[in-house]
Amino acid sequence: MRPDLAELVPYRAESHQGMVKLDANENPYDFPPVILEEIWQHMGKQFFNRYPDPAARRLVEQLSAYTGAGRDGIMVGNGSDEIILNLMLTFGTGGRVLIATPTFTMYGVHARIAGAAPVQVPRRAGFALDVEAIVEAARKGDTRLIFLCSPNNPTGNPSPPEEIAAILQNTRALVVVDEAYQEFGGKSCLPLLEEYPNLVILRTLSKAFGLAGLRIGYLLANPSVVELLMRTKQPYNLNAFSQLAACTVLAHREEFNGLIKRILADREELFRELQAISGVESFPTEANFILFRTSLPAERVHRELLARGILIRNMHGPGLENCLRVTVGKRDENRLFLEKLKEVLDA
Amino acid sequence: MRPDLAELVPYRAESHQGMVKLDANENPYDFPPVILEEIWQHMGKQFFNRYPDPAARRLVEQLSAYTGAGRDGIMVGNGSDEIILNLMLTFGTGGRVLIATPTFTMYGVHARIAGAAPVQVPRRAGFALDVEAIVEAARKGDTRLIFLCSPNNPTGNPSPPEEIAAILQNTRALVVVDEAYQEFGGKSCLPLLEEYPNLVILRTLSKAFGLAGLRIGYLLANPSVVELLMRTKQPYNLNAFSQLAACTVLAHREEFNGLIKRILADREELFRELQAISGVESFPTEANFILFRTSLPAERVHRELLARGILIRNMHGPGLENCLRVTVGKRDENRLFLEKLKEVLDA
Repeated sequence: MRPDLAELVPYRAESHQGMVKLDANENPYDFPPVILEEIWQHMGKQFFNRYPDPAARRLVEQLSAYTGAGRDGIMVGNGSDEIILNLMLTFGTGGRVLIATPTFTMYGVHARIAGAAPVQVPRRAGFALDVEAIVEAARKGDTRLIFLCSPNNPTGNPSPPEEIAAILQNTRALVVVDEAYQEFGGKSCLPLLEEYPNLVILRTLSKAFGLAGLRIGYLLANPSVVELLMRTKQPYNLNAFSQLAACTVLAHREEFNGLIKRILADREELFRELQAISGVESFPTEANFILFRTSLPAERVHRELLARGILIRNMHGPGLENCLRVTVGKRDENRLFLEKLKEVLDA
Repeated sequence: MRPDLAELVPYRAESHQGMVKLDANENPYDFPPVILEEIWQHMGKQFFNRYPDPAARRLVEQLSAYTGAGRDGIMVGNGSDEIILNLMLTFGTGGRVLIATPTFTMYGVHARIAGAAPVQVPRRAGFALDVEAIVEAARKGDTRLIFLCSPNNPTGNPSPPEEIAAILQNTRALVVVDEAYQEFGGKSCLPLLEEYPNLVILRTLSKAFGLAGLRIGYLLANPSVVELLMRTKQPYNLNAFSQLAACTVLAHREEFNGLIKRILADREELFRELQAISGVESFPTEANFILFRTSLPAERVHRELLARGILIRNMHGPGLENCLRVTVGKRDENRLFLEKLKEVLDA
């Protein structure tokens, strides 16, 4: 094996049957049966045995209608994860990749896998981007990519497009803004696409659109960037069923808008309740999750919640000392979580 | 972009509506409705909105029962394509990868993407492996991987396990045997797995099991190899629907065995008929496709068949001068292909 990968550890997801699952920023609601029925109706007899459309043309058309981006500026992937690896392999290998931390850990993992050097640029207090430090770091060495997440996972805060524009103006590196949670809040960088050919936006149907199980991510960028990425893309990366389900979901966006509104209302309530608990510091969020710090060690809070049937994510680490992340679930799930958290903190 | 990827071209699949499609080695039969119904019945209400099982435990169990390999020696991927890239990234980057050509072109493409140097070791006349040349080439430089396909795509001939064992005995490189077409013929290298820790076998459900649209490949290897590969695997690489469909198909193997038998009988007939056409040289095959050479330029045969509604694959290239590959389709599709081919060659 490559010695430079020796530090990587295999991903081990926690699996706990029968838990209240608030750990993965999933949409908690059952998939609407009418949409499921429509997917089923559209599956032809030769649907499974033929290779899927490698260009996912119907889906790209729907995504173009949804985002307003041109079709040749869109690429779909087997989740955003695959697109992140594509970006690293096409542009990053052998160079530096800046990452505004703390953030989604897969940027760093995929950089290493692709043989790029991940360089952390810490966020300021309150997790705002340190624009000057990023621009400064991008001047050094062979910086190829800059990864920003907005709203940021796991901190929840968005970055104003003006800050991202300030970075775009001052670097020739590709600036990748991961907007996985954009449907829950924050201003999108979409309007900047036309002006900045070095802007790349990542989106997903895993969160707001309830398709985490089907792995559908997409990228919006200048057509010249998409054309280069196509050289490393697996030809048949998005399976036929996921393409069809994504098209059907996008055609029924209004159904999901209702669910998103409910999640946003429940987020506000969950935030208020969290703030009212002594020994908890919660951070403002525009995503479908809340980061909070506890007076007890996060590892213990995580473990004791687990023992009470509640699964959330322990985020303890540099810049996130004793922090945990809870996904906004259904109302009764959120209440159960709050109740058990109080139990744990009072014990 | 990385200058070493400049030669790669984006994959452009031919798309032709309403064609007799004999170009992609797909199973031509409609998916059995009873199995489809069973898949549908097993989809729970929280099936789409939750992330899939990253370890695909149920599917790995089924594959273990099917192949007899232990569970910790199995890994699943988003098609074999993804697993090939994983192998290249985990073991190949910065080293040499031997490829017994002519063969499936994606080995070379993925080697380049991963920053490994693909080295071609040409097959002998009749497309048998040149075992000595492979062993000799594996001694040089930093050879990490050896890719062999059996039965070989696009030539159709299998390699006897004794030849593969002779290579395994004489190298410390990982020897990857792609058995994508194994259900159609040739002896599997499965019995060699226990003896040789440097053997890796690739399989797929895209061909014999009719799931090309759902992208399900798998790998069989020593558990220590799987453990290393898990470090570069995308955590949620195989979506929930494909996992479920694969499990259901494997539980109904006997249905597919019937279809496979039909394809094998039709292959023999198609082979005999092809041989009887003057100006055609066809090569013995144990896969679900036939390679043949024509007296006319392959490009012209391909184009003129296309004009007559028949899509096959033009394989013209080094070692495959004026060769084309036709997939064994349904009986009436094969007959139409033969009829139109005669028209083209007689014109």
